[in-house]
Amino acid sequence: MNSFVGVGVGPGDPELMTLKAVRHIQSADVLAYLVNKEGHSQAKEIAKNFIEDQELLPILMPMADDSKVGDQVYDQASAQIQVLLDQDKKVAFLCEGDPLFYASFTYLLSRLEHNSTIVVPGISSPQSAACALQHPLTMLTESYCVITGRHDETFIEHALTKFDSIVIMKAGRARVKILTCLENTQRLDEAKYLEYIGRDNEYIQWDVKQLEKKAGPYFSMFVVTKATRPRV
Amino acid sequence: MNSFVGVGVGPGDPELMTLKAVRHIQSADVLAYLVNKEGHSQAKEIAKNFIEDQELLPILMPMADDSKVGDQVYDQASAQIQVLLDQDKKVAFLCEGDPLFYASFTYLLSRLEHNSTIVVPGISSPQSAACALQHPLTMLTESYCVITGRHDETFIEHALTKFDSIVIMKAGRARVKILTCLENTQRLDEAKYLEYIGRDNEYIQWDVKQLEKKAGPYFSMFVVTKATRPRV
Repeated sequence: MNSFVGVGVGPGDPELMTLKAVRHIQSADVLAYLVNKEGHSQAKEIAKNFIEDQELLPILMPMADDSKVGDQVYDQASAQIQVLLDQDKKVAFLCEGDPLFYASFTYLLSRLEHNSTIVVPGISSPQSAACALQHPLTMLTESYCVITGRHDETFIEHALTKFDSIVIMKAGRARVKILTCLENTQRLDEAKYLEYIGRDNEYIQWDVKQLEKKAGPYFSMFVVTKATRPRV
Repeated sequence: MNSFVGVGVGPGDPELMTLKAVRHIQSADVLAYLVNKEGHSQAKEIAKNFIEDQELLPILMPMADDSKVGDQVYDQASAQIQVLLDQDKKVAFLCEGDPLFYASFTYLLSRLEHNSTIVVPGISSPQSAACALQHPLTMLTESYCVITGRHDETFIEHALTKFDSIVIMKAGRARVKILTCLENTQRLDEAKYLEYIGRDNEYIQWDVKQLEKKAGPYFSMFVVTKATRPRV
């Protein structure tokens, strides 16, 4: 029964959890998840309908740019999880989105991979963006890339020039830079902008020229697709 | 009740269907899906536990390189689906993987989007590859792209040079070309190769230098990730 399970709970809508995610959450002895300093966990919130009497292990992750802070948190958390695994408990770590796609789970996995581990994929945020737009992310012969607002202008413009479909995640702080890159590569008209996808405060802007040239929230994204696409 | 629903059933394991996919399949009046000339549909096979008395609409898609053939099939199928929608029926189209990620659904969507439409995302094959490998697709600051074996050598080598993580889908026919590109960009040691992920005949090769230099099956993929990754 001892196993460490990374469970993707998807982007926000609890109905977008997989049957496998639900089974592993329900059968876990312990549910672990990151919390902010207010004690909130979006992943736990998504999974709440399937939480009954499992033991809970919240892991406080302070907001910090210093990677040493994260390092200590993951060291400490993996030590705690190891104790539970040694007691023959099944520990499920809940992650928003997909556990192997830009997710904190990967830092625990690298520390605990000598144990029996299982990874349950989840719907990722670019996929939920495409669904919110009801617009194909990629079609038959198109190329596709995912980058983040942290990349520099050269890299972003390069991706916008070479790739058909581009998702730019974590766009908030970098919004002004990204709008400039879209303009420089003549892709402003092909871009869509989304905030808080699938939540009550979801916001979609189909005409990104209307966006204010200032920073946006962390949970925001640009989706750029070709205006002219292969028709079959 | 009239609506056209694109339902992603995920990469193969029926447990990787979402709760939302199951609900829409169970509540549909009609289930549509592509079949090959033997009448087989992988998407229907994945969903079979949830098929009871829904009307079935198999759509024969011949294997053909001529895009006119596909064009006619989608025209014909969307006309049939329109008739059902006009009868106030709910039609769910089952797709392997995700309906908006390299999927045939997008060609029906473009023909039927004036109706009420819903899209239910599904786990895509790069995600199931990462789970099969138990290996992160992307970490914090990494860039990620998905290309196909149809791209030319210049583009593939360029992607391998500029991006941290690369998934090369539909690698079968192009296997020899891809191996050459991996060698030319010094990324042979960072590549993993997978066939038929999640099926009985799943095959994973962690050392792609062992692969025979000849074509592989259609359902095959290379996953390339950095050997040295950010540690947090």
